[in-house]
Order: sequence, then C-alpha cells, then structure tokens
Amino acid sequence: MDTEIRHIGILIFDEVEVLDFAGPYEVFSQTRLSAGVESRHSIASAPFTVFTIARTDAPVKARGGLSINPDYSFSSCPAIDLLLVPGGMGTRAILEDDDSLAWIKQLGDNAKLVTSVCTGALVLARLGYLKNKKATTHWSALEMLRAMDDSIDVQAEQRFIDDGVITSAGVSAGIDMSLAVVEKLHGLDVATDTARFMEYRWKK
Amino acid sequence: MDTEIRHIGILIFDEVEVLDFAGPYEVFSQTRLSAGVESRHSIASAPFTVFTIARTDAPVKARGGLSINPDYSFSSCPAIDLLLVPGGMGTRAILEDDDSLAWIKQLGDNAKLVTSVCTGALVLARLGYLKNKKATTHWSALEMLRAMDDSIDVQAEQRFIDDGVITSAGVSAGIDMSLAVVEKLHGLDVATDTARFMEYRWKK
Repeated sequence: MDTEIRHIGILIFDEVEVLDFAGPYEVFSQTRLSAGVESRHSIASAPFTVFTIARTDAPVKARGGLSINPDYSFSSCPAIDLLLVPGGMGTRAILEDDDSLAWIKQLGDNAKLVTSVCTGALVLARLGYLKNKKATTHWSALEMLRAMDDSIDVQAEQRFIDDGVITSAGVSAGIDMSLAVVEKLHGLDVATDTARFMEYRWKK
Repeated sequence: MDTEIRHIGILIFDEVEVLDFAGPYEVFSQTRLSAGVESRHSIASAPFTVFTIARTDAPVKARGGLSINPDYSFSSCPAIDLLLVPGGMGTRAILEDDDSLAWIKQLGDNAKLVTSVCTGALVLARLGYLKNKKATTHWSALEMLRAMDDSIDVQAEQRFIDDGVITSAGVSAGIDMSLAVVEKLHGLDVATDTARFMEYRWKK
C-alpha cells in the first residue's frame, strides 16, 4: 500500500458542481486509520490533509451560488500527491482557458495520482491524461468525452474506472471513487469505517 | 402538493460537517421541474432558491477546514420556507450559545418546514421541535438525542423520519431526506430525475 499519498488537492472553480468536490472532500478529510467516531474528533490518525485550489485567491462561486474561499491559488499551492478535478458547467470555461489548463497540467504531472469526478474527465482528456485509457464521466457527457479523444475507451454504467488515472461517473459517484482510493491506499477496513461514519451505502 | 416552499435556508457554522450541508445543497439547488440535463443549465424550472445562513457574515470554517462565505447572517436573512440544520462537531458549540439558539428558533418558527441532518437533530431537540415526535440522528448520537428529551421517540436504522419535523441519519442520509422532501413537494418523477442527474442510488 502506498501510504505516501497525504496531500489531497481538490480543484475548485466558478460553476463547479457542489457535490462533485464536497463528496470527496468529506471522504478524504474524515478518513481515520483508527476506527469509530472518537477518532474523528482529532486529526491524530488522519492519513490525509485536504485542501482546495483555485486559479486565484478570490472566492469561487460554485453551482447554485455557494461561495468558497480556496485554500491556495495555482501559484501558492504546495506540492500535492493526489489531484482531484471535479466537474460541473464550469469545466467548459476551463477547457477554453489555456492558462488554467497549463497550471492543472503542472499539478497533475507532479502528483502521484490524478483523478476526476463527473465532467472533470473532460479536463483530463484535454490534458492528454486519458489517452489510450479506459475512463468514464457523467452519463450526459459520455459522447463528448469520446469526441475529445477517440483513443479513450469510454465506459458507461460504472461508478468509477481505475486505469492508472481514476475517473468517476456523475456527481455522487465521486464519493464511491474516493472511498475506493482510501481502500487502495489503506485497506478495506479503513474505507468501510469511513463509509460507516458517513452512513454512506457503499458496495451495496 | 405544497408548491409554496421556495426558499431553502441552510444553516452553516464552524465545524459543520461538509456533506451534511453540501448534499442537501446539491439536491435542492439542482432540482428542476423539467427533466434532463439541459434544464440544469438555467434556473427557469428551478422550484427552489437555496442559500446559506450563519451567525455573522464572516467566513465559516467547516470540518476539515473548508471555508465558506455565508449568503446571509441571522440578522440579514430574508424569510425562508424550509430550514435545514446540518450536524457536525460544531453543533456542540451551538447548544451552548443562547444567542444562536434564539435566532435559529426564530428562523424555524417562521419556516413552513424544519429539517435536520445528522447531529443537527440535537439542536432541534434543544429548541423543543422534537417533543413527542419520532426522530433520528447520526448512529453515534442516538443516545444523546434520547438523553436531551425523553419525550422523543428515537428511531435507529432509518435514513430519515418525517413526523412533521423531518430528521435524518448521519451525513449522506441528508441527501435521501432532501430527495424525499422534493418528492413530497413536487412528486416522484421530479425527485427521481434529480437523483438521476446526481447519479445517486436512491431508493435502491
């Protein structure tokens, strides 16, 4: 197990889908190597630190208007081990923004693991991370993903796909993907305990 | 069906559990009376407006450090139809804060529907909203809820309980409760379409 992945960097941007980033944020920030509820009262057995990253330090307005202050901007961000790119209508603007794309590529190239939720997969496709790989996205964007890079083996009807780069289906599927990452890194017991804390019906 | 519930007020506070408020936020802000994905590109058929409410206008630091700018403070908040009180460790401070309790009571008394997620039920119990009612909370807080008011008929093993006031189990169960509210107000098709957009495995 790779216990070296500690710093989880979650990208946020205007019109990011709320649950796309908040579900994984919940999973990674509440994972504890010691089971139960008491262990969640401190970070003593927390294997991850989680932070949000945006283009600048300015507040980000997610879908529905939720206003979030990013922990870091692209230029102030410390080294991360896992990059998570969520989806939402805001991905369309990122696909047109060469400056953001270059920064996200730099973050991804320096991370040990690159992941996406929902239409975040479109951003990964644009950056070439999904070339010749199996991948998935929100059900409404499967065709768009295929059209962006025909070397991608686009999979429907799956909660997430781990083909080196990990992509997940829409919105709530990011929770399943994040729990799978916890399982991969820290074992089934730790992932199951996290799902139980969240009362999330996992693997059912 | 009561189509008069439009304004959804979601309480946030320091150490609020992220998914407790973000799950319902996602559900209510992405509900559309017209099915599909295109309808989510505008608010034309959105039956709800959703906003966050905090003690003051200052940023709120949720569990794990997520920083949110509330839409309104207690004193600037417009009339709401549905009050949602999420849980998290921060509920303990609210239970000791008479000023916040008085404001939350005023919001609840003026709302058509009062709801909670997770340990938000402890706040509702303290305010008397659960007297002689069936209710639930996070599995780790069931005993605490019983101890706060022995007239409450505390239910375990349920995702949510609708006994006039609606309480839900822990963290992710707030998503099920919110979808049930959508169903109650706008019918099963609208709720199912919202769950499908979110790729949430609802009622399975």
